[in-house]
Amino acid sequence: VLVDGRPLRTIRWSGEAVEVIDQTRLPHELVLVRWRTLDDAAAGIERMQVRGAPLIGVAAAHGMALAVAEDPSDAAVAAATARLAATRPTAVNLTWALERVQAELADAPIEQRAGLARSLADTMADEDVATCRAIGEAGLPLLVDAAERAGRPDGAVHVMTHCNAGWLATVDRGTALAPVYAAHEAGLEVHVWVSETRPRNQGALTAWEMEQAGIAHSFVADNACGHLLAQGWVDLVLVGADRIAANGDVANKVGTYLKALAARAAGVPFVVLAPTSTVDLSCRSGADIPIERRAAEEVTEVRGPLPEGAWATVPVARAGTPAHNPAFDVTPAALVSHIVTERGAVSPDAL
Amino acid sequence: VLVDGRPLRTIRWSGEAVEVIDQTRLPHELVLVRWRTLDDAAAGIERMQVRGAPLIGVAAAHGMALAVAEDPSDAAVAAATARLAATRPTAVNLTWALERVQAELADAPIEQRAGLARSLADTMADEDVATCRAIGEAGLPLLVDAAERAGRPDGAVHVMTHCNAGWLATVDRGTALAPVYAAHEAGLEVHVWVSETRPRNQGALTAWEMEQAGIAHSFVADNACGHLLAQGWVDLVLVGADRIAANGDVANKVGTYLKALAARAAGVPFVVLAPTSTVDLSCRSGADIPIERRAAEEVTEVRGPLPEGAWATVPVARAGTPAHNPAFDVTPAALVSHIVTERGAVSPDAL
Repeated sequence: VLVDGRPLRTIRWSGEAVEVIDQTRLPHELVLVRWRTLDDAAAGIERMQVRGAPLIGVAAAHGMALAVAEDPSDAAVAAATARLAATRPTAVNLTWALERVQAELADAPIEQRAGLARSLADTMADEDVATCRAIGEAGLPLLVDAAERAGRPDGAVHVMTHCNAGWLATVDRGTALAPVYAAHEAGLEVHVWVSETRPRNQGALTAWEMEQAGIAHSFVADNACGHLLAQGWVDLVLVGADRIAANGDVANKVGTYLKALAARAAGVPFVVLAPTSTVDLSCRSGADIPIERRAAEEVTEVRGPLPEGAWATVPVARAGTPAHNPAFDVTPAALVSHIVTERGAVSPDAL
Repeated sequence: VLVDGRPLRTIRWSGEAVEVIDQTRLPHELVLVRWRTLDDAAAGIERMQVRGAPLIGVAAAHGMALAVAEDPSDAAVAAATARLAATRPTAVNLTWALERVQAELADAPIEQRAGLARSLADTMADEDVATCRAIGEAGLPLLVDAAERAGRPDGAVHVMTHCNAGWLATVDRGTALAPVYAAHEAGLEVHVWVSETRPRNQGALTAWEMEQAGIAHSFVADNACGHLLAQGWVDLVLVGADRIAANGDVANKVGTYLKALAARAAGVPFVVLAPTSTVDLSCRSGADIPIERRAAEEVTEVRGPLPEGAWATVPVARAGTPAHNPAFDVTPAALVSHIVTERGAVSPDAL
């Protein structure tokens, strides 16, 4: 994508360091940070400087490259893999990426490992871009169909999304939002209902992406999404996924399931878009997917910039209020209309 | 209720002024403010210093008393009624309270109106307390049943609620939370899942009430509620109402409908508790209920105290992000297990 007219990916090499967009500062500030060590990368993934299942996988591959540049021994590779695997338990792309890197390194002589790990990180980044582009092309007909079915006077299609599964969640282009970009480029009128996505407010990332791209959008509280669907103001729901089980159950950002229920009640298609690396055939159903619990403070506090340029953490509830913070939920396959990967759109029971 | 050991109602007379708890400062600070004029009262209701359908009705009656003390003429009474009726369009208790005051004043000689309006405000406050107590008693058996059905080793019942329909939403005791207080007093183990209730975060009021009363609770993002219900961690959902249509459809704080869908999917009873003054037989269905839209900034900003004691407004999205902010949604009667009023618990089709 272009940001302020310049092409920008979420992750890239800058000399011997990995440079990423610090997404905890967006949408308020566009800040690039450099990871120089494995620990920088692992902490950056944990603290959600980068987030989004596809980007987490690619970022982990970059973290492996940093680790191997320091120490290419078998023991160091195993330790780095374990450290990165522990950062985020739900996104299966992370495991997938680490297994791929580990397998390729295992077959390589020690002295070639550093170069191999770095070129593998590059390859995985490029593959992610190509995959996202293919997801956009495979998803575009669903938007065209929805626009036709809606038959609005202006021909527009009203899409609802949750969290951020745009280019910021990938290396470029996005998953759930890839067809939105494709539709916008094809001249289809698109309006996106952007849900805030408490507690981490990733909807603000989606709103920022839409603003950058000049795509019409409205920011809404997560709570408003049932009302919007019931009122007939949504033609299609598009979301990403952190892990898809063999039976088509989908783990995605907490709150996805509520939108799926409301879409079903309103007769609106509910579409999940993700690379095939998100499908985990070793999970028979959603019940097998581990759900990450994050810190209580994410729910009881909100962080943001003050007019003076300082960053403030303001409490929502009183300090010490007991809180529970699951980061994901599971949407049963029965509520999913289509799963779209780089290979095309299928019904969830056809996985 | 007792706050810091002292009995406290949400609204009361203090000399010639009306004293209310400024709920925009809770849960961070307990601040009492005084309304001396009709305009103070109307602005206080609009700005949500007081909120909750039952309390809005009683507060409007107090606002009428302030207006009539100033000018008891027919023209002034009509103007005050119009001013207060325009503050919040969805809560029908507001209309109900204003019509009652207006009817009683119309029959009274000018010189008696000031005293009458004030005693009527007192009567309505006392009636609200009695009504809430009766709602608690009528709802208690539903908690006892839910605890028995759940059959947990500790005998506890896990209740989910939305927004704040506790004593802060009434004069005292609450509506949705009245049976929780009754159960706690009766020695039943209760745990309350408190949803944040973006964009205005009234869940923090509920958490504060629970903390004051010593009732176990957990604060969660609205998005987490589908996951909690699907996991079997909720035995009963209790919510208030801003208006109930003749067919049993319920308008309540936006996000209520999503919880009702998830409760139905999980086979968990979904119970609406409100005084009979919330039932509006002139609305045939939820489609006839006007849904208030509030300012975009409520969604794009969060307000809270800083450690230094100042209050900050931090942006969630970027300034100027287009936002849409419906304050209520409609839950169809088919998703409601029981409607509990001061007269007892009934099925919504038996209204």
